[in-house]
Amino acid sequence: MTAIQSAPLLSKLLSRRDLEFVLYELLRVDGLTQRPRYADHTRETFDAAIDVAAKIAEECFATHNKKADQNEPGFDGRRVLIIPEVKAALDAYCNAGLMAAAHDYGLGGMQLPYVVAQACFAHFNAANISTAAYPLLTTANANLIQAWGSEEQKAMYLPHLLSGRFFGTMCLTETQAGSSLSDIKTRAEPQADGSYRLFGSKMWISAGEHDLSENIVHLVLAKIPGSPPGVKGISLFIAPKFLVNTDGSLGPRNDISLAGLNHKMGYRGTVNTVLNFGEKDGAAAWLIGEPNRGLGLMFHMMNEARIGVGLGAVMLGYTGYLHALDYARNRPQGRPAAGKDPLQAQVAIVAHADVRRMLLAQKAYVEGGLALGMYCALLVDEQKTAESPTARREAGLLLEVLTPIAKAWPSQWCLEANSLAIQVHGGYGYSREYNVEQFYRDNRLNAIHEGTNGIQAIDLLGRKVGIDGGAALAVLAREISGTVREAKAAESPELRSLGEQLGAAFARVTDVAREFHRSAGYARTALANAHVFLELTGHVVVAWIWLRMALVAAQKLGTTDNPDRDFYCGKLQACSFFFRWELPKTELWHRLLNESDPTCEDMQDEWF
Amino acid sequence: MTAIQSAPLLSKLLSRRDLEFVLYELLRVDGLTQRPRYADHTRETFDAAIDVAAKIAEECFATHNKKADQNEPGFDGRRVLIIPEVKAALDAYCNAGLMAAAHDYGLGGMQLPYVVAQACFAHFNAANISTAAYPLLTTANANLIQAWGSEEQKAMYLPHLLSGRFFGTMCLTETQAGSSLSDIKTRAEPQADGSYRLFGSKMWISAGEHDLSENIVHLVLAKIPGSPPGVKGISLFIAPKFLVNTDGSLGPRNDISLAGLNHKMGYRGTVNTVLNFGEKDGAAAWLIGEPNRGLGLMFHMMNEARIGVGLGAVMLGYTGYLHALDYARNRPQGRPAAGKDPLQAQVAIVAHADVRRMLLAQKAYVEGGLALGMYCALLVDEQKTAESPTARREAGLLLEVLTPIAKAWPSQWCLEANSLAIQVHGGYGYSREYNVEQFYRDNRLNAIHEGTNGIQAIDLLGRKVGIDGGAALAVLAREISGTVREAKAAESPELRSLGEQLGAAFARVTDVAREFHRSAGYARTALANAHVFLELTGHVVVAWIWLRMALVAAQKLGTTDNPDRDFYCGKLQACSFFFRWELPKTELWHRLLNESDPTCEDMQDEWF
Repeated sequence: MTAIQSAPLLSKLLSRRDLEFVLYELLRVDGLTQRPRYADHTRETFDAAIDVAAKIAEECFATHNKKADQNEPGFDGRRVLIIPEVKAALDAYCNAGLMAAAHDYGLGGMQLPYVVAQACFAHFNAANISTAAYPLLTTANANLIQAWGSEEQKAMYLPHLLSGRFFGTMCLTETQAGSSLSDIKTRAEPQADGSYRLFGSKMWISAGEHDLSENIVHLVLAKIPGSPPGVKGISLFIAPKFLVNTDGSLGPRNDISLAGLNHKMGYRGTVNTVLNFGEKDGAAAWLIGEPNRGLGLMFHMMNEARIGVGLGAVMLGYTGYLHALDYARNRPQGRPAAGKDPLQAQVAIVAHADVRRMLLAQKAYVEGGLALGMYCALLVDEQKTAESPTARREAGLLLEVLTPIAKAWPSQWCLEANSLAIQVHGGYGYSREYNVEQFYRDNRLNAIHEGTNGIQAIDLLGRKVGIDGGAALAVLAREISGTVREAKAAESPELRSLGEQLGAAFARVTDVAREFHRSAGYARTALANAHVFLELTGHVVVAWIWLRMALVAAQKLGTTDNPDRDFYCGKLQACSFFFRWELPKTELWHRLLNESDPTCEDMQDEWF
Repeated sequence: MTAIQSAPLLSKLLSRRDLEFVLYELLRVDGLTQRPRYADHTRETFDAAIDVAAKIAEECFATHNKKADQNEPGFDGRRVLIIPEVKAALDAYCNAGLMAAAHDYGLGGMQLPYVVAQACFAHFNAANISTAAYPLLTTANANLIQAWGSEEQKAMYLPHLLSGRFFGTMCLTETQAGSSLSDIKTRAEPQADGSYRLFGSKMWISAGEHDLSENIVHLVLAKIPGSPPGVKGISLFIAPKFLVNTDGSLGPRNDISLAGLNHKMGYRGTVNTVLNFGEKDGAAAWLIGEPNRGLGLMFHMMNEARIGVGLGAVMLGYTGYLHALDYARNRPQGRPAAGKDPLQAQVAIVAHADVRRMLLAQKAYVEGGLALGMYCALLVDEQKTAESPTARREAGLLLEVLTPIAKAWPSQWCLEANSLAIQVHGGYGYSREYNVEQFYRDNRLNAIHEGTNGIQAIDLLGRKVGIDGGAALAVLAREISGTVREAKAAESPELRSLGEQLGAAFARVTDVAREFHRSAGYARTALANAHVFLELTGHVVVAWIWLRMALVAAQKLGTTDNPDRDFYCGKLQACSFFFRWELPKTELWHRLLNESDPTCEDMQDEWF
């Protein structure tokens, strides 16, 4: 690689100023360098990694985003054909060591905090989410093997996954088993040597077949004959495309074959496959962990994957916002409402209040989403490296309750940001000569894959709220109360009022949670309306994050003549927007839950 | 054409039962047959026309919807190439006489009420909105020439447009003049013979170049040198692709050339062009109406076009809903929340409350939108044929105030329906092997073309609310009050409560309108928040339409053992859904307007 220079100042991927605000002013991630694991790091090494990521994202990923969208992977009967820019970009990514950004030095990694690695990865999501999907899956795959694989498995796969010589997949879904994984049918037949042979077909496998890497490591859910029915009988296997010899060289091709390609509305550059395991004598596979514990292991990885999907949704919204802002500042159209003199020059559309509304909403959604996602990423670090066991446990609890929100909220509201970015562009917005229509198509997938938002809602209300007798929600309550207290003690009446509003809004969440545990009848209807609870909690959590940002901004503005005055004013105004235009929606959601609205439960199939 | 048989019973385009409910039970359009213009018609002739439309839509339009999406029009340097199915479908449409469905017998038309013609056209919108765009534009073009053309112009163009021998376009936008038409630059040079020569370039011209018809009749906005600046200096011209001889035969090609094709996210089957007028010695053109009055004439057509766009948005949502319903009834996945026994068979997903929520929301949006659109179409008939001048005038006023809503509301909420249809389908939803992702892409255009929703909002609050000192809103108030009174007198406590709620919600609209006229300061901020007023008024109007439907349904259910019991129960439940889940949003919108929320106005460009 040639020497890395600093990223372009006027990136349309991600505002570096905002990212630094989130990392260093809001989350103070430079504090992590005090911990033994990150002792070799400084803010400078964090920034250097982000510089490298920003540069590769701009120069190798963004440059083929549209081309990859317009030239989907195809199959010529023998090979999957992918435009060469994808491999070139991924090679640059791997060569820069980014596949192992957060991994141990001993594994060849940079041992960066997870939150910094995510700050790096955000640029790839913004630049080209479908090419970024390959490393996303590969890292998740490596993390699972690192966490649960045997020493032999780790030695065989980890170094190659982390160098990018092998890529990875997750093979969960089957045609008849999407959200309902208990219904998978793929069979794992035990062999005399301790290995297994897989027979079955897997659907929607991203990166399932390609020549971008030397090998593909599939992590596959399957059932060992005689296992219990349902989710308690699912095991997890490694099944590589090519068998791997003990010296790391590749052996014969495994019995895994491409049965078809799926064609989607977005993420078109990511090859998405139907894979058949065991068309001949079975795909050789090796059990990870214990039999029948596969789903739990997969979900260990799924939680990080869900935060990753959420951050992907954020970044599609974020780059769309920056595109819309740039367009609005440069597109002359119309005149101020007061005094429409056709002889005067047209004004840039950013001058129109309705355009400012659309930009402000995008800003509130995407900057709120970024801060939420980065906060969750920091919790991953806290869970692993915080000093006290209590702090680690509490970080884990917060992560549990925030993960469905971090996945679902951006996939809904940052998609809305993408829609607003189109609207700001007018007719150019839906034109494929511009970029924003692709962001919108790409982002529509995020509310579905890695668990639909309906599944996230059931996870939040049905599982997470009840963990350890409500411990996760209690930690969240403590954190939010702290921010409320801080805001109420602020000098600014506006901030004090926002503190009051957040307190009242969070009470709506605890209200529902309390009743949920008290009354079985209430609980049944509330679960039927779990979607509403996810909406409610999501907006309250993002309001909390916004208030935290506003408190930082207000404090910085207090120091006179701050050169970043405009930046902090923007944070305060976006926070006000979220509280005035968005947070009141929680009143309606709370009312539906509070009144145990039975409309959807009562609706009969025959009445449609 | 071969003999037409009745439409398939299980159409996924449009529920015939629902359409008949709207036409005959809600709007009682069979009453129109009492009027002289429609005296030859009966409900049977209306139904026969709808049968023909449904059959051609199913057999000729729906069948190439995906193919047209996947094979956009191209340009080989000489001709625009369009898949042959498009011309075959349009020939079937024209041969059935549908291009002139609502036109006079004397012009070869069927002289159907406009509302019945729209009921026919709804099927084409659902089946294939991009092929349907050609007749939509041609009919609008013919209507304008019929209304404002000279006798000579009418004789030269009308019969050929209404037979489908010629197709039409609307050429308004230029690169620098989209929403701001006052900035168009296309020049119309007067010639000695009374004609003009056009010089300029027009952008986003749908159906601007093709071989689907023998000729293309462009209606072009341009400025005659020396005209006043701005919108008061815009004139309207006819400029045909081929000059037309007095005997109807075609003369030489006009100086109009294709400068490029636009490629969009949706509506891909509709060729969309950049057209250059006058690259050589000017495009021959003829003035319609008086000089400098062009924008007013164009807007006469635009109002019908906007109702047409709104109905297009409705029908994309509607067909998406029927696809989602069909999928939900046939897709087994998961088990009831109570008792998840993996040994039991999976249930159809329509059994899950969250799926029912998504279906019910779609039903509320699309059936509400259809009824609103058809009501507006009926108002077009009332405006032309109602017995008293007062009734005609009032229908016109209602149309004025409802048009921005009929355009904007479905383009927002029936797009949301399309998003929910994707969500119901899970991973299949965004897969191009299924249909719903295309509906979503197609529908995203409707909030922009024919005037963005931001423009509709300014039109509603800035113009329509003030017409004749508030006369339009007063007529709407009278109509809504009538429904409120009727509901409050109902036996059912639920209907009485809905009546109360609608009354309260409409008071929010009148509240804002009153203050708007009383205080200039309030008016300024309200106009900056005009989008919110459009949201507020749109939801109140659709709630009104839903309550009218519920009143009819309740009355029908009163007759015991109604065989359509399920149908009417569905109407009542969807009405309840709209009032419980949607109408409360008007409280928040009202609050923003009431408090003159300054957040968007106060935001500074530098703060983004």
